[in-house]
Amino acid sequence: MPIRIVLVRPSHPGNVGSAARAMKTMGLDSLWLVAPERFPAREATVMAAGADDLLQRARTVPDVRTAVADCGLVVGTTARGRHLAWRIVEPRAAAREIAAAAQASEVAILFGNERAGLDNDELQLCHTLLTIPTGSVYASLNLAMAVQVVAYEVCLAQRDRAGGAPTRGEGPVPLANVREMEQFYVHLAQVLDEIDFRDRTGSGQLMARLRRLFQRTVLDQNEMNILRGILTAVQGRRRRAGAPQVRAEGTGP
Amino acid sequence: MPIRIVLVRPSHPGNVGSAARAMKTMGLDSLWLVAPERFPAREATVMAAGADDLLQRARTVPDVRTAVADCGLVVGTTARGRHLAWRIVEPRAAAREIAAAAQASEVAILFGNERAGLDNDELQLCHTLLTIPTGSVYASLNLAMAVQVVAYEVCLAQRDRAGGAPTRGEGPVPLANVREMEQFYVHLAQVLDEIDFRDRTGSGQLMARLRRLFQRTVLDQNEMNILRGILTAVQGRRRRAGAPQVRAEGTGP
Repeated sequence: MPIRIVLVRPSHPGNVGSAARAMKTMGLDSLWLVAPERFPAREATVMAAGADDLLQRARTVPDVRTAVADCGLVVGTTARGRHLAWRIVEPRAAAREIAAAAQASEVAILFGNERAGLDNDELQLCHTLLTIPTGSVYASLNLAMAVQVVAYEVCLAQRDRAGGAPTRGEGPVPLANVREMEQFYVHLAQVLDEIDFRDRTGSGQLMARLRRLFQRTVLDQNEMNILRGILTAVQGRRRRAGAPQVRAEGTGP
Repeated sequence: MPIRIVLVRPSHPGNVGSAARAMKTMGLDSLWLVAPERFPAREATVMAAGADDLLQRARTVPDVRTAVADCGLVVGTTARGRHLAWRIVEPRAAAREIAAAAQASEVAILFGNERAGLDNDELQLCHTLLTIPTGSVYASLNLAMAVQVVAYEVCLAQRDRAGGAPTRGEGPVPLANVREMEQFYVHLAQVLDEIDFRDRTGSGQLMARLRRLFQRTVLDQNEMNILRGILTAVQGRRRRAGAPQVRAEGTGP
């Protein structure tokens, strides 16, 4: 079911537009406005950029009760520490709850007026209060920024529910496998020996360190071929220069 | 160490102000501007609201290289799917990396121009690329919104670190900074040339690939010293074997 973002008595039309844009980037498109001070308004449309379709479809209602009447879960956003008696969760936890509930229910997320927030009657309608953590005494998030952060978390939570996030962005080149990595380390150690490279770390941990470095890099096949090629080139020059031959284990690229 | 937010060629002063406000709410206060179109500007101050102190202390520099020269970790933000060959992470994972690195090193997070993003030379300076996931085909996050989402994740990751156990084996060893990495690439290219290592990839992209490999590895100072030492050892052997001397740029470890 669509998750609705409810802006309660927003003062600045520009914030409404920015909030619409923030929603749309995160795949949310149901915008409700409770008694907006000015709407429709040109600033809203300007700030919405490519999300003005959300403004056109926005529902305007006179009070919060109307906006949430059919909702199974109502989450109210609030500044930190104001409502100690409530269950207050952060966006990440709230988003999981929201994504779960939205499987089968209407869900509303309320954002209060820029200055005053939500009033007590409105808070009473909420199941959960959500506070965005801030890193400083300056906790004054802009309304649309708050919508962006919450929508971002909801987007992630919905994707997680949908079954697994792509975790990395690598292309289709296969990774070097364990066997190839081990051959590489043998080759590397051999070359270090041939060029008389001494462990200056004093710890005797040279190969362990190099291994840690390359392990965490997670090399793909192309990169492995390049590195093996470099090692072989180092050996080739030395041998042509008359150094004694040493047989390499593992084949080069 | 402070984590710097670097806005690269921002077009709209209002976005600079909003970004400053977004940063301040999340406890970040080091703002760098690379060649801003107009700054200082009244719109910036208006949008910064209570964060205009960040604008006053903002550093303005002519290019990205200057902004990141002393940084051990450089994270570039980019729109989804543009740079498949890179390691691309989402804000949550990037924030953990950033919070860890910031224990001992300067860290920069780059945000490109509103339309054009970061250019290729700027991406080359990055260790990690960050993409904010979006829930729809409309992926057009406003610049300051992107700063808000990333700053929010960094804030959470720093809080987690302050409370919880360290997640990796990061010691107090500082990371190699951008200047040192660039000296390393010069040295590496020189050695490859001296050992007559040819680009067998056919693509002419050898150094670009090696750079990508080592950038994503995020080397610390010890590892950098080891790698520079290996390069110097390769040169030393060749020279003792009678090959012509080539002066290395940058000093070895």
